[in-house]
Amino acid sequence: MTEMEFQLSAIIKCSGSLTGISSAEIADFVLYCNETLLKKGAPKGGGAAIDWWNVAEEKLELKLVSDRYVRVHDALLRLKKELAKFLGKHRIGLRGVEIQVYEMTLDWDEDWQLKKLPFVKQMNQENGRLKLSLDVDEFALGNRIPDRLLKLLGDKKEAAKWKGKSEHWELLFESEKKPYYFDKDPTEEMLNRGWIRHAAGRGQFIYGPQITKIFRAFERILFDEIFTPLGYEEMIFPKLVTWDVWKRSGHAKGIYPEAYYVCTPKSRDPEYWEEVMDYYKVTNEVPLDMIMERIENVGGMCYAQCPPSWVFLQGKTMPDDILPIKVFDRSGTSHRYESGGIHGIERLDEFHRVEIVWIGKKEQVIEHSKQLQDKYRHIFEEILGIEWREAWVTPWFMAQEGKAGLSELKEAGTTDYEAVLPYSGKLLEFQNVSVNGNKYPKGFNVKLQSGEELWSGCSGVGLQRWAAVFLAQKGFDRDNWPVKFRDVVGELPEVFRFL
Amino acid sequence: MTEMEFQLSAIIKCSGSLTGISSAEIADFVLYCNETLLKKGAPKGGGAAIDWWNVAEEKLELKLVSDRYVRVHDALLRLKKELAKFLGKHRIGLRGVEIQVYEMTLDWDEDWQLKKLPFVKQMNQENGRLKLSLDVDEFALGNRIPDRLLKLLGDKKEAAKWKGKSEHWELLFESEKKPYYFDKDPTEEMLNRGWIRHAAGRGQFIYGPQITKIFRAFERILFDEIFTPLGYEEMIFPKLVTWDVWKRSGHAKGIYPEAYYVCTPKSRDPEYWEEVMDYYKVTNEVPLDMIMERIENVGGMCYAQCPPSWVFLQGKTMPDDILPIKVFDRSGTSHRYESGGIHGIERLDEFHRVEIVWIGKKEQVIEHSKQLQDKYRHIFEEILGIEWREAWVTPWFMAQEGKAGLSELKEAGTTDYEAVLPYSGKLLEFQNVSVNGNKYPKGFNVKLQSGEELWSGCSGVGLQRWAAVFLAQKGFDRDNWPVKFRDVVGELPEVFRFL
Repeated sequence: MTEMEFQLSAIIKCSGSLTGISSAEIADFVLYCNETLLKKGAPKGGGAAIDWWNVAEEKLELKLVSDRYVRVHDALLRLKKELAKFLGKHRIGLRGVEIQVYEMTLDWDEDWQLKKLPFVKQMNQENGRLKLSLDVDEFALGNRIPDRLLKLLGDKKEAAKWKGKSEHWELLFESEKKPYYFDKDPTEEMLNRGWIRHAAGRGQFIYGPQITKIFRAFERILFDEIFTPLGYEEMIFPKLVTWDVWKRSGHAKGIYPEAYYVCTPKSRDPEYWEEVMDYYKVTNEVPLDMIMERIENVGGMCYAQCPPSWVFLQGKTMPDDILPIKVFDRSGTSHRYESGGIHGIERLDEFHRVEIVWIGKKEQVIEHSKQLQDKYRHIFEEILGIEWREAWVTPWFMAQEGKAGLSELKEAGTTDYEAVLPYSGKLLEFQNVSVNGNKYPKGFNVKLQSGEELWSGCSGVGLQRWAAVFLAQKGFDRDNWPVKFRDVVGELPEVFRFL
Repeated sequence: MTEMEFQLSAIIKCSGSLTGISSAEIADFVLYCNETLLKKGAPKGGGAAIDWWNVAEEKLELKLVSDRYVRVHDALLRLKKELAKFLGKHRIGLRGVEIQVYEMTLDWDEDWQLKKLPFVKQMNQENGRLKLSLDVDEFALGNRIPDRLLKLLGDKKEAAKWKGKSEHWELLFESEKKPYYFDKDPTEEMLNRGWIRHAAGRGQFIYGPQITKIFRAFERILFDEIFTPLGYEEMIFPKLVTWDVWKRSGHAKGIYPEAYYVCTPKSRDPEYWEEVMDYYKVTNEVPLDMIMERIENVGGMCYAQCPPSWVFLQGKTMPDDILPIKVFDRSGTSHRYESGGIHGIERLDEFHRVEIVWIGKKEQVIEHSKQLQDKYRHIFEEILGIEWREAWVTPWFMAQEGKAGLSELKEAGTTDYEAVLPYSGKLLEFQNVSVNGNKYPKGFNVKLQSGEELWSGCSGVGLQRWAAVFLAQKGFDRDNWPVKFRDVVGELPEVFRFL
């Protein structure tokens, strides 16, 4: 039994009756297909074949079988082309193809549970084999739906295999132990002090003048220590992200449970919305069901920050001598539908991040990521004086994909910065530096004049995460803050008081 | 014929048969209601009355009529209370009320077209009268649905009356004529120069290093000329706005055609989204219909910028001596679903605005708005050197609402800043200063210790609008820019080049 088996039954409709063509001539054609045409590109003994055929007036009915090499839908395409030539000699044309049966069978462990698959109308799982019956037409075959379905099954198999196993984690650097000056939750403390207040949304705060000044001090540090000395320039990246961007960045594969979705009105005509407005005015209730009928989804709110910026370069070719490019964006909020319950400023649905992006050739990008890491160490050690560590983190199944093992994979990968929150004893991932390889230039079709491969890296500085770590370790008594940081912050403003 | 007529038929269900109570006793009760209870608060000759009644076992059937004064639904409430007392003497309780008919009739011009109204099952418009038959239960009457429906009709009448008439416009100040150095569309020029590029979304751009530096120069000017000398502090306002905020700010009445709606997943469970992910992986198409079934609307993206900040003060009482409060926010994007076609950076769906908010007593807020206006005049005249004018603008129907005419209304109102775009000859509204009266403190229930009324004002500085005006009038040759502005901007960075 071969690993994968495919079976396809189809009716090919022609412009005239086929009964005038002799059976022998058709049998010769089928023989040629089975011995030559449908075997091309397959290893010896492999490939596709016409297993059965029948002529009924202007219809040719046939059944194709194959292994993984010339899959039946590819075989059908080859066959159609050849058949058109063959029938052309008899002045008969092809009119269309009706797919009656499409089945695939492959090895499948019973533990890898499946519920529902797109384009699959029936599935059977027994004796270590999975048999799928597909609901596809010629158009779907042209779009390679069966191939993508097999890729999806491969992904599910990998995910099932590694489920529950932790990621690969490797310590790169660890700071000295530092004294902790605080043992409470800084979010609670800020709420009590009136520095922040829960906003109306989930995982969302309003930030008062004191903590905003601390955030801006973090930005000041980034300017003084990174942007100015390393030659960064500021850009403004879009904050509404359309599906087209997420298709290119790969987020469209899995962002769904965590996205904040954005929808636009199907019409801007006030009359289209009059019923909604009237309902609200009469009931003081916003009619959410009526709204859902009148809007359409176009994408989501900023999630990873750098993907939409790549549209600036999309389809362009750049001269090599302008590399490396170094830009940053701090023009808006990021939004993630985070898991469960109440959480402080260390895990938010709405947060503020300075996104740092660098683009260059492979060596330039790797080299620059090391420069950045040096700068961050300096900031955390000399200016914020926090206790932290750096780790190289990769999910196991990704690590396994690397052909030459972990060491080579490490060239493109993520360094996470982690720090202890004394009040809970838990580690918070408060920063990252990622080398993304050629992922984005490839996804957005950006090229280099020399033809060399273009790489990129990004690093997100979450202002709330920095504050969560700093305040959790250093507390709210400014005398315990490092002098250098105190100088950058200046006095904290007092604007509001409440009774 | 009185201006408004109401009619209501209801069945009041009781806990026991009413047949044991004499007709005379009930007639006395009805007489008392008609002469006293249902007339209280109405002018002589006005009020409600029981027009007909009938006892059928444990049911009391009745028909109420009224004019505008003690509307039938209010009459029904009074009656129920009194009836409970009356029946109590016979040891009978009330069990429920079933509304069979609710009709209202009022004067209505045939030109004021109506299509559909909430809670209205039938409407007739003839001889200058509108008759509405309502589908309401006791709960809806308790929620004052008929009153709100009348308010809605009043709004529609006003809107119909003023339809097509322009707003009230009054010139407050006009700068000197200035030389124009450019006659093209600055958006086109920036696209050609590679300063900006259309992003993937509607009315959305990605801003390169040069124009971003100009935006940041505008912010620098705001700091130097306004925030520092006038004692402003920075805050961070939320950028996802929930319906609760828009209900309090009033936007829920009419924002619908222009909003960017935000929806969250109904579940964060990856299994809930597996079908969506699988569909995408197999087709490379994002299944928008499947997404719409799995998300729910919670509000929208930032539209007016200051409303969600009021949650910081919601329900609080402040001491008088901290006033006036002066804060600003520049932490993210604003989004409006703008009308039609292609448009440049002067009318965008995604734009960047510095929002300035001041809060105080009435005199403080008005006084501060004048200070701000002086500062803006200085900036536009001395630093940007543009040609502009200021106008006080109010829609006519709002102006009409003012009891003492325009002059008093002007205390709370909007000053618009307009400038000519030489390439089109059109005026662009590029800035505003608004005194909002007590609207926000009232909507968000913010009070002052002294009990005095709290007012507020806001002013939005749209960075793209400032750039549109400045570049349209001054062009891209830096030699034509005012020296003071050139000094603030510094050199424009060159980061990207394309083949």
